[in-house]
Amino acid sequence: VSATARIDARAFLRVKRDGGRHDPGELEAFVLAAARGEIPDYQTSAWLMAAYLNGLADAERDALTRAVIRSGQVFDWRSLGRPTADKHSTGGVGDKISLALAPLVAACGVAVPMVSGRGLGHTGGTLDKLESIPGFRTQLDAQAMRAQLERIGVVMVGQGPELAPADGLLYALRDATSTVERPWFIVPSIVSKKIAEGAQAIVYDVKCGSGAFMKTEGDAVALARQLVDVTRAMGANAAARVTDMSQPLGVAVGNALEVREACDVLHGGGPADVRALTLELAAAMLVLAGRGEAEARAALERALDSGAAWRRWLELIVAQGGDVDAVERDQLPRAPAVVPVPAPRAGVLAAVDGFALGELIVAIGGGRRAKEDRVDPRVGAMVRRRIGDRVDAGDVLLELHLAAPDPAAVERAAAAFTIADAAVAAPPLVIASVA
Amino acid sequence: VSATARIDARAFLRVKRDGGRHDPGELEAFVLAAARGEIPDYQTSAWLMAAYLNGLADAERDALTRAVIRSGQVFDWRSLGRPTADKHSTGGVGDKISLALAPLVAACGVAVPMVSGRGLGHTGGTLDKLESIPGFRTQLDAQAMRAQLERIGVVMVGQGPELAPADGLLYALRDATSTVERPWFIVPSIVSKKIAEGAQAIVYDVKCGSGAFMKTEGDAVALARQLVDVTRAMGANAAARVTDMSQPLGVAVGNALEVREACDVLHGGGPADVRALTLELAAAMLVLAGRGEAEARAALERALDSGAAWRRWLELIVAQGGDVDAVERDQLPRAPAVVPVPAPRAGVLAAVDGFALGELIVAIGGGRRAKEDRVDPRVGAMVRRRIGDRVDAGDVLLELHLAAPDPAAVERAAAAFTIADAAVAAPPLVIASVA
Repeated sequence: VSATARIDARAFLRVKRDGGRHDPGELEAFVLAAARGEIPDYQTSAWLMAAYLNGLADAERDALTRAVIRSGQVFDWRSLGRPTADKHSTGGVGDKISLALAPLVAACGVAVPMVSGRGLGHTGGTLDKLESIPGFRTQLDAQAMRAQLERIGVVMVGQGPELAPADGLLYALRDATSTVERPWFIVPSIVSKKIAEGAQAIVYDVKCGSGAFMKTEGDAVALARQLVDVTRAMGANAAARVTDMSQPLGVAVGNALEVREACDVLHGGGPADVRALTLELAAAMLVLAGRGEAEARAALERALDSGAAWRRWLELIVAQGGDVDAVERDQLPRAPAVVPVPAPRAGVLAAVDGFALGELIVAIGGGRRAKEDRVDPRVGAMVRRRIGDRVDAGDVLLELHLAAPDPAAVERAAAAFTIADAAVAAPPLVIASVA
Repeated sequence: VSATARIDARAFLRVKRDGGRHDPGELEAFVLAAARGEIPDYQTSAWLMAAYLNGLADAERDALTRAVIRSGQVFDWRSLGRPTADKHSTGGVGDKISLALAPLVAACGVAVPMVSGRGLGHTGGTLDKLESIPGFRTQLDAQAMRAQLERIGVVMVGQGPELAPADGLLYALRDATSTVERPWFIVPSIVSKKIAEGAQAIVYDVKCGSGAFMKTEGDAVALARQLVDVTRAMGANAAARVTDMSQPLGVAVGNALEVREACDVLHGGGPADVRALTLELAAAMLVLAGRGEAEARAALERALDSGAAWRRWLELIVAQGGDVDAVERDQLPRAPAVVPVPAPRAGVLAAVDGFALGELIVAIGGGRRAKEDRVDPRVGAMVRRRIGDRVDAGDVLLELHLAAPDPAAVERAAAAFTIADAAVAAPPLVIASVA
């Protein structure tokens, strides 16, 4: 029995079973008790199902967020002497924005204490991408994070067990009980981890389209609104962008390929959409940290063009033990087989099934089906055509980077592209802004 | 991994979460896998909450019943050479019917393989009542049950772990997750145990009123209908009576007191309502076993009046190790303090709160709050007035049988009685019959 008042879990369950509202303090106590192992998993999972079906009101959702934050440590970087900001993406195919964004923002004087996840399902994870750099360490303790933030203003690490541990428990139970997809569960899970990592301002990139979890603009905007509202309720500043995921972001999909593309952006190049979105989200971070919009944009362009952002990236790699030579000399791991996938007919590229493409990358070894799976950093795809492009029969739609020849993979890749007769307009990159 | 096909528990949960219907075979496989420990409790409890909220259709409810039956052994008494029948009551205050009924029916040539439960909550349990007879054993193995059924046609035992073990697991999870009170869970739980004990015909006594779980006639009749339908779907014959529980049944409430009252009935006496309900339910059992109604009634009256039923009761006690002398000489344990509870005013007895009275018996030691609690066989109450009786101020409403003087108990007992000014009609004993 703990020092806190004992929870009557059965009475608590009756409230949500009957469609009632929990007292926020009681909800917080229940979740904290579950995280301490004082509520058995079978009661927690029954509550998750009741809350999945009967919903959580905003005050309950905020209490859940608060409980998950308080279940662990909360980093506090206020004594750093400079503002902190971070970015979170809901995940998409080819979304390597964080890689260039973190050193770029740091180069403009705002510290980025970025805590990221691994890929699971059809989208990649920032940690997996970073680990395609030989030697790169993603586990640092709080003291090492602080020292690095003071010195170079940026860290990119994985979530340790000290941050928001209740989220790990709740997510595992939601995953096992088919109670994942509800905004009142998703929002606390995302926001709690960002608040626990200690950033004072957070920009959310809510992906929308075939390659994202949110398929419609309405759902994506609603999620963005909630992310911003709950983040503010937890005492941090926030903004969000809803951005297009109707096709992969940029050209590269796959871990080492995406690091290479991020390097291009940090050199002032890279695909136009990747550069534009990096600047859009970085500017939003600087604005939340107190800069004017125009001043922020100018500082960011300068940092890219002057090489300051690139140098910060190399400092980050050195600080976290990565092989900086491999990055500078473009010697990241490469797949032995590069196979072109041709267009079967002439026309206009009308759609790219990002979900199918993401699943294909997992199938060829570039992602995980289970947490224990190892990821092959070399494999992936280079997407050579974008929605609205004219193609002739035989034109290369994409190149597959494979560990071994795989004709089925080529067929699956081709099937992800839809070619139409008439002209097609691609959606805008930034669909909506939520302030 | 078991020999059966692996269950995709997450997909199964999605079906009920989304309000769909399970394939009966899949539902059966899920419950059997849960009973074997192959489905973790946190998935089973999430399913229970989804099914509590979204319901089970009749075919699903039948599949659940079948699965619980198949999770354990099923007794088969068909080779006994005589029909078998049993009675199940949904539980009420002062309901000692089983004690006299089982030897009475056996004395009329129908074997009674009765498997009973212990008291929990405000109602007593047949096992606790039997155990107020010193030495009475309620745990017999199947072989000993068979031998005793062959010899004297009646056994009264507790449920061993071999019968319907899935019910134990599901009930524990329902109790812990506040998902108890749904007919599609209650009916399979009751019917599965009766089918597993091997009776070919089952009469259900569904209690209705302040001292019962079912408070309204409509709810009670609906439950009775389902009990009969599901029992038939499982291949046994069935009937039900909805009977009054707006006041305690008979006079005695409490373990040894109720055994003494059952002895009175078996001697041809006892309170009129206890005798009448014993005959009503016993006749229903004989009719299900093939006797004509009039013939059954006559045989039962004869067995009571001739002493045949009383002798079978003594044979039962001897066979199961009970102190038959203590029963014959009326020397069952007695409480040291017998305290009258007087009427505070004159009038007509209008209501008796059976639930409050049942809770009071638990409080003075005659029942359990938790499975581990020990029951004091001596304590209880003798209820001296019935609904509709005229009372004068100071008339004894009931006598409390206490282990030690307890003024608070006297006050609580008095508060359970409502005295009105005008005449009040008591409900009929048998409210409805379901065939």
